Amino acid sequence: MLSEQAKQAIEIAKTIKKQQSNALKPEQVNFLRADADKNTGVPIPENMRLETVTNPAKGEHYILNNGNDNTVLLFIHGGAYATGSVKSRRKLCFELLNRLNCDGFSVDYRQWPEARHPAAQEDVLAAYNFLKQKYNHILVFGESAGATLALTLTLQLKFDNAKLPDKIALFSPVITQVNTVASEYLMQERDPMLLGAGDPVPYFEHPYAKDPLISPIYGDFTGFPPVMINCGSEEVKYDDSKILNYLCQKDGVDVTWNVWQDLFHVFVLFDMPETTQALNKIANFLK
Amino acid sequence: MLSEQAKQAIEIAKTIKKQQSNALKPEQVNFLRADADKNTGVPIPENMRLETVTNPAKGEHYILNNGNDNTVLLFIHGGAYATGSVKSRRKLCFELLNRLNCDGFSVDYRQWPEARHPAAQEDVLAAYNFLKQKYNHILVFGESAGATLALTLTLQLKFDNAKLPDKIALFSPVITQVNTVASEYLMQERDPMLLGAGDPVPYFEHPYAKDPLISPIYGDFTGFPPVMINCGSEEVKYDDSKILNYLCQKDGVDVTWNVWQDLFHVFVLFDMPETTQALNKIANFLK
Repeated sequence: MLSEQAKQAIEIAKTIKKQQSNALKPEQVNFLRADADKNTGVPIPENMRLETVTNPAKGEHYILNNGNDNTVLLFIHGGAYATGSVKSRRKLCFELLNRLNCDGFSVDYRQWPEARHPAAQEDVLAAYNFLKQKYNHILVFGESAGATLALTLTLQLKFDNAKLPDKIALFSPVITQVNTVASEYLMQERDPMLLGAGDPVPYFEHPYAKDPLISPIYGDFTGFPPVMINCGSEEVKYDDSKILNYLCQKDGVDVTWNVWQDLFHVFVLFDMPETTQALNKIANFLK
Repeated sequence: MLSEQAKQAIEIAKTIKKQQSNALKPEQVNFLRADADKNTGVPIPENMRLETVTNPAKGEHYILNNGNDNTVLLFIHGGAYATGSVKSRRKLCFELLNRLNCDGFSVDYRQWPEARHPAAQEDVLAAYNFLKQKYNHILVFGESAGATLALTLTLQLKFDNAKLPDKIALFSPVITQVNTVASEYLMQERDPMLLGAGDPVPYFEHPYAKDPLISPIYGDFTGFPPVMINCGSEEVKYDDSKILNYLCQKDGVDVTWNVWQDLFHVFVLFDMPETTQALNKIANFLK
């Protein structure tokens, strides 16, 4: 059922898993960020213009020629609050923007080891507030830790009685920093990319706190806009999606959960027919 | 498939669930203990003698007439480290002792609100050491929080390089104080007895600590004696059993996991044909 490209991506994912260790070291982070930028960073295409924004919001603002300038996609990359980068996610972001025909903003939030919680939360909020002044409609996409941030941003906006995003699309969300859901153990052999049941990410000083802005599993999702969850069936993070789908249903949110059979954590970072399918589905939802 | 008695037990379990609240109050504890003693406490049968032990081990020592005096069952009741009692579990304990034809010791460990962690751990260890002087073989049975204590006792004995029990039978074990495994959410409607996804029990001052003596999910089970896990298919604690079964397999423990279809948390406290089946299975394993 899997495409040949997906089978190759699984082999690459396995090499990523082999390089993983339980505790991330600061020197690894710089290497991993640079490596990701080198391998997946792409130049700005001809149909859009880049504005680098620095203060107070920080990130890459992608402005489409002849796009819908009423709507923007706030793109939040993942990487365990440490190893991700804006540049390495450009391709994924552009794929979505071209389908949506709208502008985008990829937030360059602070990560570990330079910063710790709530730095990323503050930066994502600053990006949202920057976009709110310019656009009537804000769509949000987040993958892995970026999906956590999409959720904690929206929970924060709820606490502040602020306007919420129009729609939220999540890929391989992480909803608890305590990696003890059953899939963290039971999927360890099957997940080609992630080790599972490891220590919390070093970005949080208090990862075990019962705080919805750290672990959105403790959040109240009542009043959230429509949410789409995507994950691979083989993820150690599978139960995070399963529980989030339940929590959204319980709180009356219009939620859709797509499980991608035999696929792995944030597989949309790889070029393959399954990625095209998933991106089409996400764009149709966000439109 | 369920017996008529099991269906009635489910109705009683539902009334227990209705009385539950997220936060346990000290005054509730005394009422619940007294109520349990009144409803399920039974006198000592004619074929055994009771010796009440008080120091340093504390509990009820049941000595069988003509029993195997080489072997003892250490019985550890549950009740969220608060609401359980030795007397209310007498019937369950006697049912096991009669099948095993050996002596028993039901440990009267300190609970909340009178005490907090590690008081219960210390008391269970004192009971084990008391029995070690008298018997060559120690079998352990624990239900719910008592199953947690059976695991933390054995982990402690491993740390101390002490002799481990011969076999461990667990009913509806709890292996993490952080109630965020998927079944805590997804089984909330189905579980007739427990609410699920609640706050940690008040007995632990630091329930979120990554400490195997608080949450045995963090334990290394290598070298454990044979373990039998029993649980109901409808429990909010179902994933605790699922993860424990995995952890034991991973660590090379001879583990057996029985899932009792359509049944609930510690259903063996109820008189019903399914309880007889389960007790026979447990006794056959412990023999």
